[in-house]
Amino acid sequence: MPVPAELDLLRIVLVSTRNPLNLGVAARAMSNFGFSRLRVVNPYGAAFREARSAVGAAQLLAKAEEFKSVAEAVADCAVVVGTTAGHNRKLEHPLRRLEQGARVIRKQLKAGSVALMFGSEKRGLSNQDLSHCHWLLRIPTREEHVSMNLGQAVTVCLYELVRDARAEAGSVKPPRATAGEVERITATLLDALRASGYLDPRPAASAEEKVRRLVRRLNLQAGDAEVWLGMLRQILWKLRSER
Amino acid sequence: MPVPAELDLLRIVLVSTRNPLNLGVAARAMSNFGFSRLRVVNPYGAAFREARSAVGAAQLLAKAEEFKSVAEAVADCAVVVGTTAGHNRKLEHPLRRLEQGARVIRKQLKAGSVALMFGSEKRGLSNQDLSHCHWLLRIPTREEHVSMNLGQAVTVCLYELVRDARAEAGSVKPPRATAGEVERITATLLDALRASGYLDPRPAASAEEKVRRLVRRLNLQAGDAEVWLGMLRQILWKLRSER
Repeated sequence: MPVPAELDLLRIVLVSTRNPLNLGVAARAMSNFGFSRLRVVNPYGAAFREARSAVGAAQLLAKAEEFKSVAEAVADCAVVVGTTAGHNRKLEHPLRRLEQGARVIRKQLKAGSVALMFGSEKRGLSNQDLSHCHWLLRIPTREEHVSMNLGQAVTVCLYELVRDARAEAGSVKPPRATAGEVERITATLLDALRASGYLDPRPAASAEEKVRRLVRRLNLQAGDAEVWLGMLRQILWKLRSER
Repeated sequence: MPVPAELDLLRIVLVSTRNPLNLGVAARAMSNFGFSRLRVVNPYGAAFREARSAVGAAQLLAKAEEFKSVAEAVADCAVVVGTTAGHNRKLEHPLRRLEQGARVIRKQLKAGSVALMFGSEKRGLSNQDLSHCHWLLRIPTREEHVSMNLGQAVTVCLYELVRDARAEAGSVKPPRATAGEVERITATLLDALRASGYLDPRPAASAEEKVRRLVRRLNLQAGDAEVWLGMLRQILWKLRSER
């Protein structure tokens, strides 16, 4: 996973964006995933200003830099990556799928700033825009519905850039019940099964083992084990008091 | 990468969605990434009907199934996964980060249908909704801006489910120039450099080697090599004709 200083070296460049919603969505994804440098090239004037109200990303939009041309917007970047939906575009650039391309961008961010460029909703990047690119990135969508919404495309690219294949840190499992707790539940359940007449009151190893395995397969959490034990004890008490 | 039959076993369940845009965005992501089974629980009536105009996903929205309760919406699913932005929610479920959680869902889809559930824009999933879940999924957003837009959250989850770590198939590199082509360019450049007076006309191995390495570092594409050779030949011709 890239460190924050590296994320700051990525410039998200939106070219000729029409819909203010997409600017807002892009800015929100940047904020969610830790990117801060937004650049816009010739946005539809009103679009840009309207987007400044985007939820949770107002500050990021306020800091966005505006440029008149792609050349100016990428002038200080060591690498320029264009995004495309097209398989079928006549290829004059190396084309990488997002999974692999993100790895390359993470490497290139260690060496300097990288521009990741998205075209307009209708036409994507023009051939002239593409002539500024070192290589192209494509999101692995279905052949039958290749074209993604602009805001969604930005979101998916940024997610892939920060995703961490080895991440376990964010995963939390509730603690499991101990073997002792599970055995107490098993014993109480066996008593209840005998008291209820489900099991023969005379001990039978095979029946007990079946129940023991059954309880272990529940894979109980620590907190739940306590509750189960309480419920079974109450049932057992009732069964015995009614004899 | 899951096969299409497995993708059909995933139900995307949107609970109490308010904004028709988010329904449209979710449907479009489903279509882009190859999922088809959308279920909605108590959407704001108008929202649902308005969303039916979503670009490229109209058919999918028209087939969406509507339910009155979460229980009914997930009744035929073997596993129910809830999504949450919260670290801090009191955890009564195992919580997995998306990268790891998607691997688990892919495994569970081999055994039966899985519901992936998203709550409303304002409140997410309620405690009652969560009580139907086997485990929870969280997208690795920044601590400072944890909460994602609903449509973007759906998009990122579906992308992670179909992403293919080993995918090289979608990456296309233009063919590289052959060693022979590169050497023809080198020879012509050397001739031009001598003809122009940049290099001494008497052969000098060290200078030639420098130029040879210089040209190889260009890492030329096949199509470009031809163009470079043409340009150099023209320059060389001109240099020689002016002597």
